[in-house]
Amino acid sequence: MRKVAIIGVGQTPVSEHWDTSLRHLALEAALNALQDANIGRVDSIYVGNMLSGEITGQSHLGAQIADFLGMSGVEAMKIEAACASGSAALRVGTLAVASGMSDIVMVIGVEKMTDTSGQETTAALAMAADGEYEVSQGVSFVALNALLMRRYMHEYGWEREAFANFVVNAHANAMNNPNAMFHSKVTPEAYARATMIATPVGLLDASPVCDGAAAVILAPEEYAKTLNPVPVRIRASAVATDAIAVHDRPDPLALEAARLSSHRAYEAAGIKPSDLDFFELHDAFTIMATLSLEANGFAERGKGVQMALDGDITLDGKLPVCTMGGLKARGHPVGATGLYQIVEAALQLRGLAGKNQLPNARLGMTQNIGGSGATIITHILESMS
Amino acid sequence: MRKVAIIGVGQTPVSEHWDTSLRHLALEAALNALQDANIGRVDSIYVGNMLSGEITGQSHLGAQIADFLGMSGVEAMKIEAACASGSAALRVGTLAVASGMSDIVMVIGVEKMTDTSGQETTAALAMAADGEYEVSQGVSFVALNALLMRRYMHEYGWEREAFANFVVNAHANAMNNPNAMFHSKVTPEAYARATMIATPVGLLDASPVCDGAAAVILAPEEYAKTLNPVPVRIRASAVATDAIAVHDRPDPLALEAARLSSHRAYEAAGIKPSDLDFFELHDAFTIMATLSLEANGFAERGKGVQMALDGDITLDGKLPVCTMGGLKARGHPVGATGLYQIVEAALQLRGLAGKNQLPNARLGMTQNIGGSGATIITHILESMS
Repeated sequence: MRKVAIIGVGQTPVSEHWDTSLRHLALEAALNALQDANIGRVDSIYVGNMLSGEITGQSHLGAQIADFLGMSGVEAMKIEAACASGSAALRVGTLAVASGMSDIVMVIGVEKMTDTSGQETTAALAMAADGEYEVSQGVSFVALNALLMRRYMHEYGWEREAFANFVVNAHANAMNNPNAMFHSKVTPEAYARATMIATPVGLLDASPVCDGAAAVILAPEEYAKTLNPVPVRIRASAVATDAIAVHDRPDPLALEAARLSSHRAYEAAGIKPSDLDFFELHDAFTIMATLSLEANGFAERGKGVQMALDGDITLDGKLPVCTMGGLKARGHPVGATGLYQIVEAALQLRGLAGKNQLPNARLGMTQNIGGSGATIITHILESMS
Repeated sequence: MRKVAIIGVGQTPVSEHWDTSLRHLALEAALNALQDANIGRVDSIYVGNMLSGEITGQSHLGAQIADFLGMSGVEAMKIEAACASGSAALRVGTLAVASGMSDIVMVIGVEKMTDTSGQETTAALAMAADGEYEVSQGVSFVALNALLMRRYMHEYGWEREAFANFVVNAHANAMNNPNAMFHSKVTPEAYARATMIATPVGLLDASPVCDGAAAVILAPEEYAKTLNPVPVRIRASAVATDAIAVHDRPDPLALEAARLSSHRAYEAAGIKPSDLDFFELHDAFTIMATLSLEANGFAERGKGVQMALDGDITLDGKLPVCTMGGLKARGHPVGATGLYQIVEAALQLRGLAGKNQLPNARLGMTQNIGGSGATIITHILESMS
């Protein structure tokens, strides 16, 4: 099995890109990544996207984007795993290079969520849940997360104010990320006052609906350095699934697929959680950030929220998370999010994270969650400088 | 790179399965494949599907189907490349085994097209074309194929009656396939009389809207025979793309992505077209069957239709095609079709094709087309008995 490295990264700002089509967003991220890698062509293109069929009436993005990039002829296809589509596409790209069937691979995550009404977007996102047993009852993703958050507060005795620092941290980090959607500080008081959406999920517990694209170029590690002087090694890549409906999980607060995928990744990389310098986690909702810290071995059950209260998750904390703003403040263009996490982690490991640069960042983890935890994909990246 | 073999196949009948949900169809094909391979669990599941989001409001099929199979925890995701989604999923499964990251892989193609009106299905299928430059003009896939067929007749001087034998052959072969949608003979006279849909495409030029699922189990070739005494080797797997919009192709009758993908596959397998014992081609429309024979090196430009007229494509012809009925008569549940082709080719190579068994079939090719030729995926399979 060949080892795989990232030799280029690119992204668009996350925003409401009403004046830009999906293929233009993908093009912008792809061209940035090609320029970063200093190459002009790839063997294969894997596109992560969740909603383009439902929202913009366009499937077949693999061929469409290859065509628009002027690369018709190359292998291309789309990968979908709900909000984990971006990381799933990276997984396939990694398989392609590892197998030897492709040498240079581009992975693009792209999503355009604002070309329709908010209600339609909410309905389209709900397709990640179980249509016949969850959505038919009228539950949206906000509602599912509200049920989980309420249950967590009940089981472990927390008030909702305890979750504030996840949001404060994300917004503080996004201030220095020019590609983030939000550049506004959030205080614990603002978090507490935020409009309630589905109690106890308030407006500031949830990540925004938005548009964006991010891309990476992969190459075999053995000659990655001939292409880019500071490549980033993919130390591990692991996908795990869980019951798609929350009510089918023996312990809905356990995020079993997070535990499985991160522990597979730890084993493949030969590391333990405390070896990690930072963690790009999937804070689509504050409750997901909390459960993720617990499932991946950073906190005991019921104590994930304590890490935020203790300041462990800030840039100078024990385990910095969402170093460029996370889903909450960089934004969550769903099928692109997994690639934004990878791009940001790679920038940290290359020393290119600007004002948010972590000193001596050598080993970082990303984790991308599909649905309410039914597909969870973990990548561990390592500096090669 | 590890070589990859097919150790089990399964399928459901192709039909209008109004009483069966998408996940039940997938389950039935998957259980048949697991039983054929005599195993109970796999490492990863790759699902090929095009339309479930748009037609049944369900995305996230990877996790959903893994869950429904009782295999939660395994790696799973969905792959989409329009009507080539099934073969694209097989491509990813092949990468997973070839890379060494998975040992036993299940690939499932599944589609449920009849849970909505015919008009809505036609609109959903059009998402495989270029939404902004083709579909916005009102062109459906039938219309695009009618334009291509008309152009072909104009360029090469054929009458539409010359295409009849593609349909006659497909329906004759489907008579002996219990999983085929149609069990009715078609005569050249019936073909000529068929209702016109979009001149010159008549009802019998087009494959039907239908439901179905097909699945295969993959394993490393080195120990495939310990699991199944008659495995089938994947000699080559190749994906190529072309401009998504027909009007962007310098020569719309050339099927450039078919030429590219088959020639990459010939090269990888070290064979020439005449070495093949049969060819499961993508006869979504008779014009696609014709263009495919030409692009893949079996006929000169303008002469593909002659092969049908000369009887070359029947079970006892020079190059049997659609040996179990093809898309026209077995049916074309779009995201499942690529896997039906693979299942049928594997059955031929294992000597299990019943009354349609080709004598001494050692080497077969499948080709699956997405859109009007923007993604074309070729697999070459070989008997290991």
